[in-house]
Formats: sequence, structure tokens, C-alpha cells
Amino acid sequence: MRYVSFNHQGRAVLGVRTPEGVKVLGEETLESLLARDVDLTSHGAAAQGGVVEIGEQDYLPLMRKPGKIICVGLNYADHTKESPYAQPDYPTLFPRFASSLTAHNKPLVRPRVSDTLDYEGEMAVVLKSGGRHIPKDKALDCVAGYALFNEGSVRDYQFKSPQWTVGKNFDDTGAFGPDLVTADELPLGGKGLLLQTRVNGKVVQSANTEDMLFDVATIISTLSEAVTLEAGDVIVSGTPAGVGFGMNPKVYLKAGDVVEVSIEGIGRLVNPVADEV
Amino acid sequence: MRYVSFNHQGRAVLGVRTPEGVKVLGEETLESLLARDVDLTSHGAAAQGGVVEIGEQDYLPLMRKPGKIICVGLNYADHTKESPYAQPDYPTLFPRFASSLTAHNKPLVRPRVSDTLDYEGEMAVVLKSGGRHIPKDKALDCVAGYALFNEGSVRDYQFKSPQWTVGKNFDDTGAFGPDLVTADELPLGGKGLLLQTRVNGKVVQSANTEDMLFDVATIISTLSEAVTLEAGDVIVSGTPAGVGFGMNPKVYLKAGDVVEVSIEGIGRLVNPVADEV
Repeated sequence: MRYVSFNHQGRAVLGVRTPEGVKVLGEETLESLLARDVDLTSHGAAAQGGVVEIGEQDYLPLMRKPGKIICVGLNYADHTKESPYAQPDYPTLFPRFASSLTAHNKPLVRPRVSDTLDYEGEMAVVLKSGGRHIPKDKALDCVAGYALFNEGSVRDYQFKSPQWTVGKNFDDTGAFGPDLVTADELPLGGKGLLLQTRVNGKVVQSANTEDMLFDVATIISTLSEAVTLEAGDVIVSGTPAGVGFGMNPKVYLKAGDVVEVSIEGIGRLVNPVADEV
Repeated sequence: MRYVSFNHQGRAVLGVRTPEGVKVLGEETLESLLARDVDLTSHGAAAQGGVVEIGEQDYLPLMRKPGKIICVGLNYADHTKESPYAQPDYPTLFPRFASSLTAHNKPLVRPRVSDTLDYEGEMAVVLKSGGRHIPKDKALDCVAGYALFNEGSVRDYQFKSPQWTVGKNFDDTGAFGPDLVTADELPLGGKGLLLQTRVNGKVVQSANTEDMLFDVATIISTLSEAVTLEAGDVIVSGTPAGVGFGMNPKVYLKAGDVVEVSIEGIGRLVNPVADEV
């Protein structure tokens, strides 16, 4: 089943995609459904009412107040090679705050203070349950579904100190959505899917989610050795080679560019680039 | 005014310290008061009812669901010297998730997977307002008050990858409280205060908050160039020299140890150490 967050008649609503079109599930959010342990593989079938149109500018970030947003860096070997780092044998984890999120069709914003905004096409994993010390063979039971993420990064700020936090958390740089696809509709662990990023129509990243060094089950299990995971937490699973920072010479995003992230079976996430006003 | 979070007759409540003792403000939280823009410098005066006792085991983390928790690393020159890093000329920022928080008198938990749990005595800054591009000379207007934080760190996990996130986010390693002291009762920016950490009664860290490389106003202003700050966000402002990791040989916490963080005018935060069960 596929869920989508959008503005409808002045209200933020959750919708479900049906064969007829999108139906509104009400002023519910994925966060509230997940907190109540609602089964997303069937919940959408209860949608009442007619089909509605989602205006191009009406999309919202798939979740606006998720729990933890934990991103995985250096999770594709070819991307590590274009970075200044050696490949660690443990997942490289960093946070995004909800304040950095933006939606499908909304601008990725290049900030006033930098001209080094870069894209990172990624697969996001939304958890429906969690806990501590989750065995690897139970880890995928925690996954509600998968979504697209453009983990926009401001490179000079990312490397101003040993921690990447600021460069990964500029307002309106983390595009999330448009759809959550429940796990039952995709291969186990979101594996074997073609992930591509296009800038102005040209393919700049092309990889398979199979190529992650730490797969989704390993990330969940490993992280839970330290941290209690919870329904509504989001894991953003890393980007493959092809970012602008890795090019020679480096190429960064500028106002008017359009970035598209797609993953087979999940969909397309499109964001124009705009300068901060 | 001083606020404290605790369990009282089976409910989580917020209290205010008065000359007579602690009075209950109800099932309110600092998070909800700050979200409603309540003036904490006067709000506690409205406390009704009699004085209550707080049992030693009844303290809660000062805030259980703050907004962003943003920690500053390498913010005292003498601590940077005991670390593997050169001193960056930009604040080194990393997150804590709310899942890592614990309370005054509750154990700092040494996890099953590591014997390298370490203390970090720090001053936390709670924001009452925020925004973007906050000028440095307005930044302290955003501060609701100050509190104590023991930013417990699992050192081997901190350095398993280039990002410190996991080592800084083990469950029950971030002690926060017991009191929020409103900014009007402390020097501007929380400057000029003696910060000390004791392990089993012995002073292991002793510094002055004046010695921060990036002071509170600078941290807020700099961070807001990138990130929209909000009421309820927390900044944990860094630790001085004297952590166990910096000793030769290194000394880590073990079950039965007692760690106390104190800052002049803010109070004492005491935590025994226990092994994860």
C-alpha cells in the first residue's frame, strides 16, 4: 500500500493511493498511525470518500515530525572512494533534524552562506516497531516501509569540523517522499532495486540497493545494540557514487536545476533548486 | 526561578522550587510551557498547593522529549588537546536523541557491548525561542535557562566510524537535570561559572564556563545560519579537560562508581554507574 502526505482544502492530510486515485484518510499522520501500531499494509483499504487530486505544490514531507532520523554515510563502496574517508567496518551514522525536511516538488534551498549544495539520492526506511538488541534475523520485522530521500548536503559546512551535522541539516535540504511504500510490496530489505539520481534529466547516480555495505537488517540490528529504536524512526540508508562533490572539477547545485531521485518500485522524488531568499 | 521534573503520586509532573520547598505545577512539561511561549521567569509563582518532597528515585530527565538536542564537541581548548583532533575554527556539532536521556540519581548505564563508558560534565542551554539568522547580539534573548548535563560517551563506539553519533547515544548515558535555572538568575550567557565533575568524590574536571571557545551566543548565532532553532531545543555546550579517555592510562567508569557534575549557581547532578542488565 502507498501513503502520501499533502495539503488538501487547507488541511494537512494523509492519503492512500488506490487503483482509482488518491483517497483521503483524514488529518492523520504516518507518525500517529505508527505510534498506535496500526497495520499499514491494510489500513488504507478503509479510506472513505471520493478520489482527490494532489496539486503539484501540495505535497508535504512524508513525515514532518518523525522520531529519530538516522542517516548512514559511506554505505556504498564506490561513494566512499569519492569521499575523503577510508571505508569503516562499522556503519557511519549521523542525524538529520526534522527542521531540515522538505517535500516532493518543493525547492531544495541553496543557503545564503554557501554555494556547495549537493544531492544524495537515498532509500529511506520507516520503522513500525523497535526495541533494543534486535537480532539481525528479526530486524526487517521492524520495517513499515520504504521511501525516497534526497539527503541534500552543504559540503563546505559538512567539513568545517570533524562532525558533519551542520552540513547535513540546513533548512529545506532533506527531501522526503512523496510516497511510503509498505514493505510487503517490495523485496525483503528493499534489496535489489535500481536507485538513480538525475540532475536536469542527466543520470548522475545509478546503483543497486543490493550494493549497500551494511544492509537494512544489519543497520537496524547494529544500531539497536546501542539505541532503543521506536516506531516512527527513520533510517536513511546511504548514497552511491556520483555526487557533485566527487566530480572533477566539483559540480554543485544552483538555482533552476532540477534533481530527481528514483528507486524501482518506490517512485520519483523531484525537487527544483532555489536560492535562499 | 528553578524548575524540576519528577514523578509524584504516580504522575510525571513539573515542579518549581520555592523558599518553602518544591511546589507542583501540574502535569505540565517544560516542553509544553516553552511551546506556548510561557514566561518561565514568573510562571512558577502561580504554583498552588503545599510543598511536596521529591523522593531520591523520583527525578525524571529535565525534559523527556525536547526538540533538537545539539551537543558541541571540542569547545574547551584543554579538552581538544586530550582528544585525537586538531582544534577546528567552527563549532563541532553532534546530536543526542531523546532515547539516550536519563535523570538525576538514576544510573548511567555501561552497556553490555563496551567497557569504555566515560563522563563529560557540561552546561546545557534550553531555548525559549529561535529562528534563523539570529544575530549574535540577540542570541541570548533565545535562552530560557541553563541546566546540568553529563554527556556520557562510549568511547570505542564513538570512534568506530568518522561520526560520533552511536558512542554519544547509548540508552541511559545522557543525564539531564535536575533543575532548569532561568537565565535571569545567572550571569549573561552562563559565563564565569565554575564547572566541576567528581568521580567517587574526587575532582576530575574543573574549569570555568568562561573558557568555552565558542560561547553560548556564538553557538546559537552560528548554528542559526544553517538551521531554524525552536523553543524547546537544547544545546549541550561542551566539556573541559579531565575525561577518563584523556588519562594515561585511560580510566573508564564501572558499576558502583558515582559521578557528580556541578556548576556554580545551577546545582549538582549525581549519577551512579550500573551495568546494563
